[in-house]
Amino acid sequence: MGHNGGKGIPLVVMRRLPVYQRYLDELARLDIDRISSPELAKRIGITASQLRQDLSWFGSFGLQGYGYNVRELLKAINSIIGLDKENPMILLGYGNLGRAIAGYEGFRRRNFQLLAAFDTNPAVHGPSEYGFNVYDTNEIPQFLDNNPVKIGIITTPAETAQKMVDLLVAHGVEGIWNFAPVRITAPPGVCVEHLHLVNSLMTLSLRLNQKTPVNRQEN
Amino acid sequence: MGHNGGKGIPLVVMRRLPVYQRYLDELARLDIDRISSPELAKRIGITASQLRQDLSWFGSFGLQGYGYNVRELLKAINSIIGLDKENPMILLGYGNLGRAIAGYEGFRRRNFQLLAAFDTNPAVHGPSEYGFNVYDTNEIPQFLDNNPVKIGIITTPAETAQKMVDLLVAHGVEGIWNFAPVRITAPPGVCVEHLHLVNSLMTLSLRLNQKTPVNRQEN
Repeated sequence: MGHNGGKGIPLVVMRRLPVYQRYLDELARLDIDRISSPELAKRIGITASQLRQDLSWFGSFGLQGYGYNVRELLKAINSIIGLDKENPMILLGYGNLGRAIAGYEGFRRRNFQLLAAFDTNPAVHGPSEYGFNVYDTNEIPQFLDNNPVKIGIITTPAETAQKMVDLLVAHGVEGIWNFAPVRITAPPGVCVEHLHLVNSLMTLSLRLNQKTPVNRQEN
Repeated sequence: MGHNGGKGIPLVVMRRLPVYQRYLDELARLDIDRISSPELAKRIGITASQLRQDLSWFGSFGLQGYGYNVRELLKAINSIIGLDKENPMILLGYGNLGRAIAGYEGFRRRNFQLLAAFDTNPAVHGPSEYGFNVYDTNEIPQFLDNNPVKIGIITTPAETAQKMVDLLVAHGVEGIWNFAPVRITAPPGVCVEHLHLVNSLMTLSLRLNQKTPVNRQEN
């Protein structure tokens, strides 16, 4: 039911799906078969009724008194997110951030495959420690024409990010995951998800700063 | 007015503050003195009335027909977030992710200072390319007792993340920015901001997956 089931889902619910996926994935790996909606809601930090309301979009899972079947629910959510099929990706920029992402846990288990990385620096070309090859940036077009790539990850310097995005889009990539600290634009139909490291840090600072002055002085 | 001004601000508005800060900071760096609320709202992707409503929490800035004074508004938001004073940080774990964060643009300009990094690997100890020193992990307690540190950044492997958090908290750090892909716990009064890379990637996948099958096959 994945795609059709997903059609009517409100954006706010869609934004919570990855959170549900992470918790259910954790429970499944702990071999927990069932969980009650109050307990799952508590772990996620929302109300049980909110959780039931959200999950009702994907079918009927909870069984009165029995709670949710963890694997069944995880399977449905995975299919909505698109984790039930392969999600081939390439990495543009193979510096520290690129390497960090290449080595990040939890991608492969969710069916995200890193096919290759590209960098202008010849010193990093060749086989990577993570199995894929690192090629020169000028090989991107040929690679994209010969390989199905859903997602391009931008970890280049800010100055080259837009150029890389245009190249990806020109060769059919419809998903851009951007880490470069610069606003990039893409034509309609292309999804750009921008990870703003500094937003997350500012949110932490804001939360610290909104504590009482006394607490802050104790810091 | 920063702290007291922030007291009553709803969480949902507080979550949007970093976004406002980034755009206003960009405008200020482009030497743009004034911007109309419709234009600023459009750049941020919300409605002008939503923007006016949010900003009304920080004082009265917009002038009918003149728009907002960019620097004035930025200054007020910076003070709410806590960017008007120094925010000393340390980095726990100096692998690829740690290095990527150390070299990330936009932190220092916002008054976030990286004082030191700590790693168990002797090979990375000593002066870093970013000015600070990299010490052995067992030097953390002494460093924290001798230096004011507001924020500890966790880029260690998942297995050691909680141990590092406990150590930071035991020595008075009240802000934890966690990149380790594991749930960590901290006592009340300690703010933990967890950056889930995989959430962001799953959101992108979900958006791609919710397009019409036709579009997806063209991918």
